[in-house]
Amino acid sequence: MFQPPKGTRDFLPDEMLKRNWVLDKIREVYEIYGFEPLGTPAFESWELLKMKSGDDVINQIYYFKDKSERELGLRFEWTASLARVVANHRELLMPFKRYAIGPVWRYENPSEKRFREFWQADADTIGVSDPLADAEILAVAVECLRKLGFEGFVIKLNDRRILESLILISGMPKEHISDIIRIVDKLDKIGRDAVVYELSRYVSNKSFSIDLLDRLSIKDKPEVVLSKAETYLENNDQGIKGCVSLKKIVDYAKSFGFYEYLNIDLSLARGLDYYTGPVFEITAKGYEDYGSIAGGGRYDEIINVFGGESTPATGIALGIERIISLLDTKGGFKDLKLGANVLVAAIGEKAESQAIVIAQNLRSAGIPALVDLLNRNIRKQLEYASKKNIRKVIIIGEKELLEDSVTVRDMDTGQQVKVKQGELLNFIRT
Amino acid sequence: MFQPPKGTRDFLPDEMLKRNWVLDKIREVYEIYGFEPLGTPAFESWELLKMKSGDDVINQIYYFKDKSERELGLRFEWTASLARVVANHRELLMPFKRYAIGPVWRYENPSEKRFREFWQADADTIGVSDPLADAEILAVAVECLRKLGFEGFVIKLNDRRILESLILISGMPKEHISDIIRIVDKLDKIGRDAVVYELSRYVSNKSFSIDLLDRLSIKDKPEVVLSKAETYLENNDQGIKGCVSLKKIVDYAKSFGFYEYLNIDLSLARGLDYYTGPVFEITAKGYEDYGSIAGGGRYDEIINVFGGESTPATGIALGIERIISLLDTKGGFKDLKLGANVLVAAIGEKAESQAIVIAQNLRSAGIPALVDLLNRNIRKQLEYASKKNIRKVIIIGEKELLEDSVTVRDMDTGQQVKVKQGELLNFIRT
Repeated sequence: MFQPPKGTRDFLPDEMLKRNWVLDKIREVYEIYGFEPLGTPAFESWELLKMKSGDDVINQIYYFKDKSERELGLRFEWTASLARVVANHRELLMPFKRYAIGPVWRYENPSEKRFREFWQADADTIGVSDPLADAEILAVAVECLRKLGFEGFVIKLNDRRILESLILISGMPKEHISDIIRIVDKLDKIGRDAVVYELSRYVSNKSFSIDLLDRLSIKDKPEVVLSKAETYLENNDQGIKGCVSLKKIVDYAKSFGFYEYLNIDLSLARGLDYYTGPVFEITAKGYEDYGSIAGGGRYDEIINVFGGESTPATGIALGIERIISLLDTKGGFKDLKLGANVLVAAIGEKAESQAIVIAQNLRSAGIPALVDLLNRNIRKQLEYASKKNIRKVIIIGEKELLEDSVTVRDMDTGQQVKVKQGELLNFIRT
Repeated sequence: MFQPPKGTRDFLPDEMLKRNWVLDKIREVYEIYGFEPLGTPAFESWELLKMKSGDDVINQIYYFKDKSERELGLRFEWTASLARVVANHRELLMPFKRYAIGPVWRYENPSEKRFREFWQADADTIGVSDPLADAEILAVAVECLRKLGFEGFVIKLNDRRILESLILISGMPKEHISDIIRIVDKLDKIGRDAVVYELSRYVSNKSFSIDLLDRLSIKDKPEVVLSKAETYLENNDQGIKGCVSLKKIVDYAKSFGFYEYLNIDLSLARGLDYYTGPVFEITAKGYEDYGSIAGGGRYDEIINVFGGESTPATGIALGIERIISLLDTKGGFKDLKLGANVLVAAIGEKAESQAIVIAQNLRSAGIPALVDLLNRNIRKQLEYASKKNIRKVIIIGEKELLEDSVTVRDMDTGQQVKVKQGELLNFIRT
């Protein structure tokens, strides 16, 4: 028997209805915030993907050649395609706010929470260097999560320029800055002692590491953390620019309504990615152990790499797999009624065509309806309705046919009511 | 500069909003008819794809190996994945009505109308051998097309058992039946003389071919064509079964409301595919030259090939690319208002945070709204609104700030009205 390829999944209707509900909500919120959909192919040229991906990701790309020996790869995220489009289409009106929702593919070791085909829902704003765009990106992400039923959040916020400047100021060697960032980024995962130990490879004086970690670990109100950071950074131009950006985001957050969730975390790096300014991660309050369900940041240097003009950009990706698994855990889907809610059940062959006509009328009025396709007796049809969680069964037999009526059975209570066919639509609607 | 890979396309927002509108409508109708979504991976094992595809298609599959040398291929249609799921999940409640909407990939020679990445929207009913299921499949497809704004249709209907039996009865050699079907299927495209010529390879007596084509070309009311076919088929068991199926579909069509579009076409084969009974194709009236925009049929022998129990099945695929290009041609999108409809424009820095608050209030109420992210002056903001086809601009400057009001500008008429902030939501809604 054939299975889905390793690391991929089938989604049966119950699961798929939940997924669609989540994706629809996100799309709705993205559009309400004025983000517009952009479509790009599932695969891109290998050259393009290579340029965008770090060494750790490049090995995860599904690579193939087409029949003309063109080298291609499945998209592993959305940003490379976005940057390509922006670089090519200089006529695009700025700011260009776009969203993209769909599967991406990575050849990773699959586990219960990690898949080779998984969904990402991105929103990005191109053409704006002001942190207002970053703040709006955070606002739209928070609103998506709220609409999905999450209630509290922790938004971790940092700026890559602050992090890098603090590392350099602390006396760490500039030539190893990438490695050091990678180590510091693990602070939350592996703890302070392990980070100090790993840093000892690059800095002989242990107190340098300890001082750095002390500075990166300040916990306080956003304004307080930032003013402390400013005193450490003194005349460091890049670092101070980072602080100014974050202060603006903190300020905008009050107008956008997510200030209460903000948490400046000076150790946050978001991996070795292409970020150039603010970076952020969102976790759901009470579910911090699940890790972040959204993350992103500013990347002002990508579009020019792809041959476009130098263009500021910022964006966020919602992690659909984690969001769905979290919603499942917290019962976020339990009140959803998914699927058809009416079955039109004919008794006997004569009533069959009238059952179809009635179903067609309901459908025309936008009411999801089924007719029995298997010519089953009424007991079996009711059994089927009950298994499908259908709430109302409209029964039509010879008697009803003569009377121009139907019998409507409420599947929750078992009550049956006779209704004139002309009044059925109104009856079902209310 | 990087381009999308050959045969694939980028869809900029204007195009993408149309595509989403089409896909959403189809999804809505599918669900109203009680079809449920099934999700399957973008790639499947090569073995599986090979089993399902004919020789002509197998060369069009994007083939690749993953890093464990697993042989995989991108899906080239939806049915193989569906059959795999049904074969594996014997617990599925029958009938299983599922839909799937998304891209499929074929390595074809790209042209203006043919792409290597293109969308299909399938609806299939599994577990029902009665032609009622075929009729319902046609009904849901017609309703999708109606909801998209098409008004008249030609539904070509045939049954593979009729076609094959008529070919055999006509004295054609059984061992070449596949080739003969392939030739006959081209009747519409290449014309009668060319078909007779091509058939001469398999049958020496030209009058056999002419007699066959005469029979396959009867044009009349469905009932008349079918009763003529029955007389030709006499005691041919398979052929008569085909006629009985089509007669039932014709009958059900009256209840479902698509009888007027039915057109029995005894030459219709739908390629060399896996069909075992009724086959059908839909074209839009007045646009017959565009070719069919939906097509499908019954395939009762696939699920067992994939290791499942023998299970009847029927389905249809809507061709999204043709549908969109046709809608573009006939002006089907011209009344759509897509994208945000309000811009909140701040004049001066002081008003900026209040502009954000107003935008957030509109968004919370479900009204798509933009704020200016580029700190532009009011003239530039109005220019931008006009380019984005935004209908209302809400202006807030220092004066409005003091008065707790805003100025609402109608972009069509240029009229401006002062509105109290507390009354803005109602004002915008009406």
